[in-house]
Amino acid sequence: MSCDFLALAVPGVQKLSPYVPGKPVDELARELNLDPAGIVKLASNENPLGPSPKVLAAVQASLAELTRYPDGSGFVLKQALAERCRVRPEQVTLGNGSNDVLELVARAWLAPGRNAVFSQYAFAVYPIATQAAGAEARCVPARDYGHDLPAMLAAIDGNTRVVFLANPNNPTGTWFSAEALEAFLAAVPEHVLVVLDEAYIEYASASDLPDGLDYLARYANLIVSRTFSKAYGLAALRVGYALSSAQVAEVLNRVRQPFNVNSLALDVACAALADEQYLAASRALNDAGMQQLEAGFSALGLRWISSRGNFITLDLGRDAAPINQALLHKGVIVRPLAGYGLANFLRISIGTQAENARFLQALGEVLQGV
Amino acid sequence: MSCDFLALAVPGVQKLSPYVPGKPVDELARELNLDPAGIVKLASNENPLGPSPKVLAAVQASLAELTRYPDGSGFVLKQALAERCRVRPEQVTLGNGSNDVLELVARAWLAPGRNAVFSQYAFAVYPIATQAAGAEARCVPARDYGHDLPAMLAAIDGNTRVVFLANPNNPTGTWFSAEALEAFLAAVPEHVLVVLDEAYIEYASASDLPDGLDYLARYANLIVSRTFSKAYGLAALRVGYALSSAQVAEVLNRVRQPFNVNSLALDVACAALADEQYLAASRALNDAGMQQLEAGFSALGLRWISSRGNFITLDLGRDAAPINQALLHKGVIVRPLAGYGLANFLRISIGTQAENARFLQALGEVLQGV
Repeated sequence: MSCDFLALAVPGVQKLSPYVPGKPVDELARELNLDPAGIVKLASNENPLGPSPKVLAAVQASLAELTRYPDGSGFVLKQALAERCRVRPEQVTLGNGSNDVLELVARAWLAPGRNAVFSQYAFAVYPIATQAAGAEARCVPARDYGHDLPAMLAAIDGNTRVVFLANPNNPTGTWFSAEALEAFLAAVPEHVLVVLDEAYIEYASASDLPDGLDYLARYANLIVSRTFSKAYGLAALRVGYALSSAQVAEVLNRVRQPFNVNSLALDVACAALADEQYLAASRALNDAGMQQLEAGFSALGLRWISSRGNFITLDLGRDAAPINQALLHKGVIVRPLAGYGLANFLRISIGTQAENARFLQALGEVLQGV
Repeated sequence: MSCDFLALAVPGVQKLSPYVPGKPVDELARELNLDPAGIVKLASNENPLGPSPKVLAAVQASLAELTRYPDGSGFVLKQALAERCRVRPEQVTLGNGSNDVLELVARAWLAPGRNAVFSQYAFAVYPIATQAAGAEARCVPARDYGHDLPAMLAAIDGNTRVVFLANPNNPTGTWFSAEALEAFLAAVPEHVLVVLDEAYIEYASASDLPDGLDYLARYANLIVSRTFSKAYGLAALRVGYALSSAQVAEVLNRVRQPFNVNSLALDVACAALADEQYLAASRALNDAGMQQLEAGFSALGLRWISSRGNFITLDLGRDAAPINQALLHKGVIVRPLAGYGLANFLRISIGTQAENARFLQALGEVLQGV
């Protein structure tokens, strides 16, 4: 037998469990021998509208350059984001999805002997990125499934370099107010970077949630991370971004792979950013779907966690695994949350009216049958 | 003034200089107020053929799914690569370009107190990835601009975890034989991972260079890295891969971002892999261009380093920076190598017949004028 290369890996990697994505439609079709066309996937918080015509046009314009490397500086997209977000281009860091941005933060500032603070039930990539960097992952118990910001503040010590906040939070959909964010930012030691993950911010209304951009000028330790994967409908192409001070962005860009964002993503994200109509339609579809699902859950006598994202988490009050399995056999993919310590819960991404109805129908049948 | 977040970064990142990519056409056009259509870029070892029709057809088939996340497991592409490369799918790791694969190796096995060995004049990403992981970058003096494999072997010690080899090497185009590789692999301690970077292997002929795949079954510490960015013409889309033992691939997949390769890249790479015609045309164009450039250099009385890649490195015998500047003003972008310690050299990617002629014409004029 040859060497054990797992034992030779760095300690953080030896203990690492990779992120488990939502089950792809093709995978379920292969496993259960189902027709992929009949499968409804409400598992990955994807935009159910389908691609915007403006985005599809931008793809076509980009194809002549497929053999060329992307612009590693992302010049045009950074200009567009800077204008939209009221910052300078030097304050923008582009990522291969916002997952990439979260990892860049971990790789730049986390190491053995340092720690990162985040909430229980927060996005799985925070502990993964922290552990991969060999740092201590400091998970603070949630309050009503959401962030307990005072407890998170209390968990910070001299070795804390990063705090991850998600607003709204995935997978629970919980959120915190502008007042709560302000109090937190004002109290965090200035050497601690606060990553405010706003992957779902476009679905929330300004009256509920603060806009992280409003705090960038006042807090040099704030990093706002956003994505084109959700409300902008570009999950396939992988593009996210961070907004921060220019110095923090300079450090992030040191650890960024030179061509981390592909050319189509760079070109198409510019088109998506300008496509107000698509964004408005995404929001409207999401609002209607949220009402539809909540009404359906009420009719089935079920409980859920109020959400400001494009998903809603259902509390089944008993082990959700058999219900999930039964849904899969009916060709409906949702997201089990046992990996988050929420074994009784299922997260449902909001789909089209027809997809939501199909899911509710299947859920009703499954609950009657088990 | 706020905190110094560079001083708070991990030590490896504090000393890091990011990779400097070839200058994009649009950037030169902006800087010198030139017409982008008149600029020739022979700076990034891109495929001058332009996209394959089969690849363009595959893009169209992929567009309906733009709002969906990629298949994080890369099931279909891994199957295709496994079949082509005579390995099992569990031995394949997909990367956001082969740059990503190189970084995954560094993040999995390098850390402070460990070191990586590579050759002087080898690809800049080896020292960058090594330093970012906080490990010692052990650079072994080159021999005739290529790898001195016995000296690299001698540089390995108990703290060495990774050796990076490039065959052919970028940016010098040098290569080593099957005999040299075999002797090296047989002598390397079995706990040291050997990354054999074959980004340009498709341009070389089997009589000159070994095929790394032939050694995978015998050496559990071998990782062969390859890319679709060069001979397959997909640099814009970012897709590369590693072939290794299943255990090494399992570790690499732990540190891989779950959606590191975008959906279009996954779909299109399958089409590219099957497109023998495009690969043959790429090779033929490269062979002809290599002859054209070598003949042009001879006519100008210039010296160059023999290359087995899709580029050729010119030894100008004096500081190449003013010559590079003069070429830029004529709308010709090539790659200065001062960052590699080769201040008298310029690397020229092989273009179309017309691009090569345009470059040789400009070079002749510049050399007469300076």
